[in-house]
Amino acid sequence: MKTFNELKNQLCASSTAKTVAVVWPADEDTLQSMALTLEQGVARMMAVGCRQQVEQHPALHDYAHCITIIDADSPDDAARQAVMMARDGRADAIMKGMINTDNLLRAVLDKQTGILTPGSVLTHVSVAQIAGCDRLLLFSDPAVIPHPTHEQRVEQVKYVAALCRKLGVDTPRIAMIHCSEKVNEKHFPHTVSYRTIAQMAADGEFGPCIADGPLDVKTALDLHSMQVKGIHSPINGQADALIFPDIEAGNVFYKTITLFAGAQTAGMLQGARVPVVVPSRGDSATSKFNSIMLAVL
Amino acid sequence: MKTFNELKNQLCASSTAKTVAVVWPADEDTLQSMALTLEQGVARMMAVGCRQQVEQHPALHDYAHCITIIDADSPDDAARQAVMMARDGRADAIMKGMINTDNLLRAVLDKQTGILTPGSVLTHVSVAQIAGCDRLLLFSDPAVIPHPTHEQRVEQVKYVAALCRKLGVDTPRIAMIHCSEKVNEKHFPHTVSYRTIAQMAADGEFGPCIADGPLDVKTALDLHSMQVKGIHSPINGQADALIFPDIEAGNVFYKTITLFAGAQTAGMLQGARVPVVVPSRGDSATSKFNSIMLAVL
Repeated sequence: MKTFNELKNQLCASSTAKTVAVVWPADEDTLQSMALTLEQGVARMMAVGCRQQVEQHPALHDYAHCITIIDADSPDDAARQAVMMARDGRADAIMKGMINTDNLLRAVLDKQTGILTPGSVLTHVSVAQIAGCDRLLLFSDPAVIPHPTHEQRVEQVKYVAALCRKLGVDTPRIAMIHCSEKVNEKHFPHTVSYRTIAQMAADGEFGPCIADGPLDVKTALDLHSMQVKGIHSPINGQADALIFPDIEAGNVFYKTITLFAGAQTAGMLQGARVPVVVPSRGDSATSKFNSIMLAVL
Repeated sequence: MKTFNELKNQLCASSTAKTVAVVWPADEDTLQSMALTLEQGVARMMAVGCRQQVEQHPALHDYAHCITIIDADSPDDAARQAVMMARDGRADAIMKGMINTDNLLRAVLDKQTGILTPGSVLTHVSVAQIAGCDRLLLFSDPAVIPHPTHEQRVEQVKYVAALCRKLGVDTPRIAMIHCSEKVNEKHFPHTVSYRTIAQMAADGEFGPCIADGPLDVKTALDLHSMQVKGIHSPINGQADALIFPDIEAGNVFYKTITLFAGAQTAGMLQGARVPVVVPSRGDSATSKFNSIMLAVL
């Protein structure tokens, strides 16, 4: 799949609309993204809290009958209720409105009432549509896990492989990013983890997929750069997904493509029973809408 | 300064041409960058090794009288001789041709015959001209120090502050990059180092300059993003230089702007008695030429 527009068309053609519970939708961009979602018919909306803002928003007016509104006393109460809806199967995804990410995650991670699948890893996956890249590009993790362990990285690879397939890539190419293509146990122990994961992928542990690394961003995404450097990799300069060594590198990629390469992005947390969308304060309504599409895919 | 072209004009207007010793210039891009340098008149060239390639290269033919050629038995011998030229004051900068960076650095760092200033930190500084950014942007370190210590980071800030001033920015704004703007000693000890350095800058330890962090790439470089996030920083979304937490983050920035934002770059090692240019295998002749300009500035 090349663009978010294609993703939209796929979702519109699907007959089973899912429901997204939006926690405390008090800000304009969130309300606009809800309107976009309903206008395009890609999902059903549930507003948890902020009845007045939702009912009185001009862009949502025509779709009032399509929105379920649940009253809530506070953003924290809204988070608890949205998580309960997900537990009960009444919501297929959760999106953050005007609530701190930490507060929303507290409800998601609550051992008694939360929705973290036991033993699973909560991590962030982003998707970018970048001018100059002929396909949607996945990457993980720009936002949640500071320094992934080998086990967490294995889960990240599984998540992005599965998501690539949902986006139509049957045998995804997953590049594990480092500043060079050399394994260096002393200074960069994650490069050893990369070699292990590449072997696991070759052994079929992640289903049909190619994982390789260490590779840098340019050799992972540009065949010419790979060839000039004399590197041989089954990624072949055509990665569908990038696994970053840590949150710093992932976040730099995310911020740089949005700032300088006009990238459109979407993102969500994986590892809970349902996807959880936690947009940044600076994300546009379009970006929030893209994330909703990803979460209901 | 906004572009490398302005840098070229400044160098052309200067009356004192410096000399760059090029170690084993056997490859086409290096030879082309030497021709560009002589054609534009920004520096004198010394080729250490590869007499035949230099003498017979068509683009260098017209400038044969301007090139000093020193014979060398091997790339390693060429490295030793180039370093000796720098020690003797006969070369003002060194550039790598067809030799491994490690081998060149061995000659540079040699305790007896090398040119590392005692007690100094060898680190890489890059300069980028990016569409969508109205000034040359400096950053460090995408290539050499894996995980800078606080002391190494202080030196990086000093180097970029001094280089910004050479590029015409009297009071440079230096942003120290992190995935968020919060200090987090537990997971991200470098954010504590950032706060200390910001205070050192405010105390005038680096001369006229503003250093602040932690900031992410977008809030460091985009006033609107900073305001949307409600962040207050004297950088004001107008950083002249970025200090990255480690080589992974710096390298992702470097590779991403060249791949997706059409960036032109230059780079060099600082901390030796003379600047040392160590281009990547994939760097173009133009990029090598830009680096030469930086090294002789």
